[in-house]
Amino acid sequence: MARSPSKTHGKTHDSTCPVAFALDVFGDRWTLLIVRDLMLRGARSYGELLDGGEGIATNVLADRLKALEAAGIVVGAPDPENRRRKIYALTDKGLDLAPVVIEIIRWSGVHDARADARKGLVDRIRKDTKGVLADIRARKPVSRWPDD
Amino acid sequence: MARSPSKTHGKTHDSTCPVAFALDVFGDRWTLLIVRDLMLRGARSYGELLDGGEGIATNVLADRLKALEAAGIVVGAPDPENRRRKIYALTDKGLDLAPVVIEIIRWSGVHDARADARKGLVDRIRKDTKGVLADIRARKPVSRWPDD
Repeated sequence: MARSPSKTHGKTHDSTCPVAFALDVFGDRWTLLIVRDLMLRGARSYGELLDGGEGIATNVLADRLKALEAAGIVVGAPDPENRRRKIYALTDKGLDLAPVVIEIIRWSGVHDARADARKGLVDRIRKDTKGVLADIRARKPVSRWPDD
Repeated sequence: MARSPSKTHGKTHDSTCPVAFALDVFGDRWTLLIVRDLMLRGARSYGELLDGGEGIATNVLADRLKALEAAGIVVGAPDPENRRRKIYALTDKGLDLAPVVIEIIRWSGVHDARADARKGLVDRIRKDTKGVLADIRARKPVSRWPDD
């Protein structure tokens, strides 16, 4: 079986496994939290991503955004209202991560002992997974930080 | 909303987000690759996990296994055939990660340009997601390293 090397944070791996492939692209805590903010919370600007709630450092955010753009998951474009600012959005490849994010939230909903942790979103995913996925596809925010 | 701090690799976070909760537990490339080997490939011993194909270092494997046991995702027990050896298995909480792993593989199946990357497993997930999930629940390996 042919193998092509892939890179993670400077290290080269040599694996044909689709799990390893995916983790090469987003298998980093901060990367998936950036995807979450773009996907669920309607974050668009650098400042909104910096304010995601877990205290990402600005250099880490810049580094991960660059990697996400290189991987074709995020696209950055000048903000029409302020050309010196960039706005970010998920590409179709990025939106295709929605089922992964949804299943992560569902797992946490079962196993996170903090009963109130984003209960609204967890409940909605339980009752209406298809609706949540459709909203994500339509680029509608499904969760508001810090309210639910 | 009450918040309880959680830990990632020594850092304390303060987030009620279920995505952040999950990433605190398995949001590390190696951790999810260990889960993959236990879940999909029928790995049980330390040696089999060390041989997962991506060249995990033995100290990293030991560290991540300890964290997975502490998080209640993996349970280690003495091997009945050799009491000096341990065998590892996913707990129910660990098996509940199956939909996350399946959706990661499905995403890679669409976006990984290496056409032959674990084609058998990717195809089976596409055609029979429920069957794959049932096999995982029944602790049947669904992928063999390095054959498919």
